[in-house]
Order: sequence, then C-alpha cells, then structure tokens
Amino acid sequence: MEILELIRSRRSVRSYLPKKITQKQIKKILEAARWAPSGLNNQPWRFIVITSEEQKKEIKNFTSDSHIIEEAPCLIVVFLDKKSSYNRTKDLMAIGACIQNMLLEAHSLSLGTCWLGEILNRREEVEKKLGVTEQYEMVAAVALGYPTDEVRESSRLNLEELILKEI
Amino acid sequence: MEILELIRSRRSVRSYLPKKITQKQIKKILEAARWAPSGLNNQPWRFIVITSEEQKKEIKNFTSDSHIIEEAPCLIVVFLDKKSSYNRTKDLMAIGACIQNMLLEAHSLSLGTCWLGEILNRREEVEKKLGVTEQYEMVAAVALGYPTDEVRESSRLNLEELILKEI
Repeated sequence: MEILELIRSRRSVRSYLPKKITQKQIKKILEAARWAPSGLNNQPWRFIVITSEEQKKEIKNFTSDSHIIEEAPCLIVVFLDKKSSYNRTKDLMAIGACIQNMLLEAHSLSLGTCWLGEILNRREEVEKKLGVTEQYEMVAAVALGYPTDEVRESSRLNLEELILKEI
Repeated sequence: MEILELIRSRRSVRSYLPKKITQKQIKKILEAARWAPSGLNNQPWRFIVITSEEQKKEIKNFTSDSHIIEEAPCLIVVFLDKKSSYNRTKDLMAIGACIQNMLLEAHSLSLGTCWLGEILNRREEVEKKLGVTEQYEMVAAVALGYPTDEVRESSRLNLEELILKEI
C-alpha cells in the first residue's frame, strides 16, 4: 500500500479481538517509533510495554477509556524523558512523530491502534502505579491489537481551511 | 517500499537541487498532513506554503538554517491554531504526527525534507513578517525539495535503552 493510502485509511480502533499479538509485532512497531526525527536527535521518547492482563486491569481504572485497555492485548505507554529533553515544544512534537510511526507500522501489519489521551488526566497516579521516577512524564498511551471488523468513517477539514496563505 | 523501510531510510536533507517542485507534489504532502490523528479530532495544524524566492529570502534571515531555506524550493511553515487547541501537550504531539506524515509522504515521492526548529528562536519576528495574527503560533518549518545525492548516516538509541519496562 502506498504511504498516502496507509495514512488515509488508518482509523482509531476502539474494539479488539481476543487474540494476542506477538513479541515480533511489538518489536517492529517500536522499531518504527525509534526512527522518528527529533531536534538535535535527542530522542526524548521512552516506553513501557504492558501485555499482562493483571497490569492492564490496574491501569484501566484510571481512565474513561477502560474498555479499550481491557480489550486490547497490548498497551504501550509513552513517556517524555525529561533528562533528554531540551525544548518542551519541540520534544512533544518529536514524540508525536514517534507515535505516528507506531500507528502507521501497526496499520501496515493489519493491527489496530488507539492513541489514548484521556488517561493523562490522572497522569501522576498512573506513573506511580507503573513505578516510574520523576525523570519520566507519561504523555500518551497506545492500545494495540487485532481490530474487530467495524470500519469507522472519519473526516478532516479541507485543505483550503488549513492553508492560511500560499506565497 | 514498506513503511518500516520508508521510516528507516528517511534522512534530514540539508542540501537541495535547483529544481522546482510542483503544486501537485505540495498538495500530496499536505494531504498526508491533513489525515494525521489529533485529540478529539481537533486538527490544530495550519500551514503557510512559501515558494516565492523573495519571501524565502526575507524569512531565511531569521535563522541559522538560512542556507537550507535558500536552497529548498519550498518552505511549509507549520502553525498551532490556538483557537482549535484544547490541550497544548496533546496538540503539539498531534502536530508532530502531522509533520511526520509530511516527511514520509515527501520521502516516498523521492523528495527531501528538513524539519527546522532553530527558527522558533525568533518566532514572533517570523510571524510578524508572515502577517499572521496572534491566533497562530509558529511551531515548525519544513524545507522541501529534490535532495542532492549525499546520503547521510544517522543513528538511534537501541530499543533496550528506550524500553523502560516490559510487564
């Protein structure tokens, strides 16, 4: 599939089949994450990979997206490494690029993902539960698994609404 | 090319051939940008597309990356639309995802890009020069064009250094 078609056909997946994913799939997705660009190549992203049902149960209580975490066989929690950070604005964009790589690689493997943000409302509690030090700030979590067959529609603003000027 | 190979083979391009790019190429790259994910689908990204040599000359004086802007036939300046914004952390990551889509689509078209960040040091002056209102915050600029043949090496941390825990 061409990259533009891959980008356009990706959807957030909120319902997953009860089928485990493999370590090999997870490693491919993190390999895509690893090669994102960052300012000064500082690579401020870090990950915790959760596949334990018990651990997912503990985490899901911190978010209204609990059903997604419950169904998805894998949750990749994404952190900003404050020690590697040099500019918060640039580092957050770099992490966004890193997450997009993960979503696209997963989609190309016919896996579904959901980029979870609501969980940040209880960031400190989740960080404590995961036992990370203050060096790491949770900035997102990505649910991962085989999608059920529902394909959802999505929409975007037209290019005319996004381009402020052409000079 | 597979997406993982596309991701891994992308490099920042800092030297460009004196060859214009087409409106069609620019539109494909912005189409990729448009389909990025964002929290609540708020799509906080906006663009100014600069191909005018005169305008590029004016902008290049605000950054130490001036030679890149001078050589690249196109510069896409990326803004956060504060009116669409609902959470700065999430919105910046969404814009990072949007920029990564642009870089990958350009790479698949055999075009080179450079994600410029140093220019943010003189953000307000550039915004003034481009005549944008306070509603828009410049967060990046992407240089775009045909790469010269130098292929640069790059490196990343190992996965073992990026994965804090596997649970």
